[in-house]
Amino acid sequence: MSSFIPEHPKILRQSIRAGEFLGSTGGLHLGKVQANLVMLPVSEALEFLIFCFRNPKPCPVIEVVEAGSFEPIVSAPGADLRTDIPKYLVYENGTLVSETTDITSYCNQQMVSFLLGCSYTFESALLNAGISIRHIEQNTIVPMYITSVDTKSTNNLYGPLVVTMRPIPTKQLEKAIQITSLYPSVHGSPVHVDNYQDIGIKNLSKPDFGDPVEIKKDEIPVFWACGITPQIVAQKSKPPLMITHAPGHMFVTDLDNDKFLINESILINRLEG
Amino acid sequence: MSSFIPEHPKILRQSIRAGEFLGSTGGLHLGKVQANLVMLPVSEALEFLIFCFRNPKPCPVIEVVEAGSFEPIVSAPGADLRTDIPKYLVYENGTLVSETTDITSYCNQQMVSFLLGCSYTFESALLNAGISIRHIEQNTIVPMYITSVDTKSTNNLYGPLVVTMRPIPTKQLEKAIQITSLYPSVHGSPVHVDNYQDIGIKNLSKPDFGDPVEIKKDEIPVFWACGITPQIVAQKSKPPLMITHAPGHMFVTDLDNDKFLINESILINRLEG
Repeated sequence: MSSFIPEHPKILRQSIRAGEFLGSTGGLHLGKVQANLVMLPVSEALEFLIFCFRNPKPCPVIEVVEAGSFEPIVSAPGADLRTDIPKYLVYENGTLVSETTDITSYCNQQMVSFLLGCSYTFESALLNAGISIRHIEQNTIVPMYITSVDTKSTNNLYGPLVVTMRPIPTKQLEKAIQITSLYPSVHGSPVHVDNYQDIGIKNLSKPDFGDPVEIKKDEIPVFWACGITPQIVAQKSKPPLMITHAPGHMFVTDLDNDKFLINESILINRLEG
Repeated sequence: MSSFIPEHPKILRQSIRAGEFLGSTGGLHLGKVQANLVMLPVSEALEFLIFCFRNPKPCPVIEVVEAGSFEPIVSAPGADLRTDIPKYLVYENGTLVSETTDITSYCNQQMVSFLLGCSYTFESALLNAGISIRHIEQNTIVPMYITSVDTKSTNNLYGPLVVTMRPIPTKQLEKAIQITSLYPSVHGSPVHVDNYQDIGIKNLSKPDFGDPVEIKKDEIPVFWACGITPQIVAQKSKPPLMITHAPGHMFVTDLDNDKFLINESILINRLEG
């Protein structure tokens, strides 16, 4: 991670665009919502939005940028989704073909961009409630696991749910569940607690992405749905083109984390979730 | 309304399909969720789903049926959306071209179907809480008004918000707001209370759809977002084809109304709403 920590997301995005900030955004505690990016050709976008609707825990949509624009006018006016993320991944027919800092050359067709909520927002709320988070203490990337749980498919998009894991002291478990329940747009409450074999994880010390963390004696592993899920879905169901952020390298919006605290006026019930 | 009131929605849908039940579904208190229908060619569907995402109060999506099928497998397995609604409206380029009981002949291209929540669900909860509803007492159709409030547009879909109005005794207002807030998937809390001129309504006794209702001395008019909104959006923004239910003639699902009581596990935060 860069030692340069800008105070406002606009400045950070300019630094990223200029190639001056290339690191993970995970350690930047600006109090602002960070988002997962999924970008698809317009021909694939309907199916992906239906997929998000059916899988709101891994894929909580916070903004859709229609074809013809790359500016998320609700969450980060002035930003450009083609240049303002430190690292992108490009999947063609399910295969990772490029890791790059600028995707402009891939955007010569009509693309639709989706910003999905990220667990950094609820981690901030957990920390504020006195619940410490191991991978933040360790300054590493949260461990992520591909599970044996299927997402709810569409005609052509399918694949397993990906989860993040945080060890939580048993006596703080209830509080951790309550707090994250209040943030449904950033993955919400856990999808699983404890027995990791039940969701097809073989070895907690060997995550599929990120770094392993120690689980202490009085702690149990708690699993939340993860915004990396669409990338594994791309690998399985092989859409012609899907561009995403690289894990840990998120899009930093102008929105305060508190914006996503549950609020009926901006809630919607999701039957299919 | 027909005097025949079947006890199960499956039986009702069969009767509708057979042409034996042609009436409004408004008076059928089966305790089941009724839904608004919007059906569009696949080429128009992405934009409509983005429109719903941006306007969750008038357009709360409860199920999407992908092109190639007309069976809502989550909310009404076995049903056929082309035949199981008592009356449909067909809009071509924004003009109403047909009122019909069977839309099979319009479905020879790839169509995507959207079921949207309907206020009958929260009305049931209001009645259970001792709040009487004038148009139900009168056995008429709820008054609906086209407002001066714009929906949040997409590139090609735009138009005014449509609202329903129910007179509520001032002393029950707080309770009515609280209860409907708990049902975000069926339009949720009111969008406006009292001064109807503020939202561009000229005369409460002349609704744009439905029937006028009396407002008593101790009551104030309360306005909720209405699922007819997409039909007015179709008239304004003129998509090549949009098929909807006729007002008051809803799709009756198998789902219990209680299913839509707020529940974090099926909630999602909607920033753009």
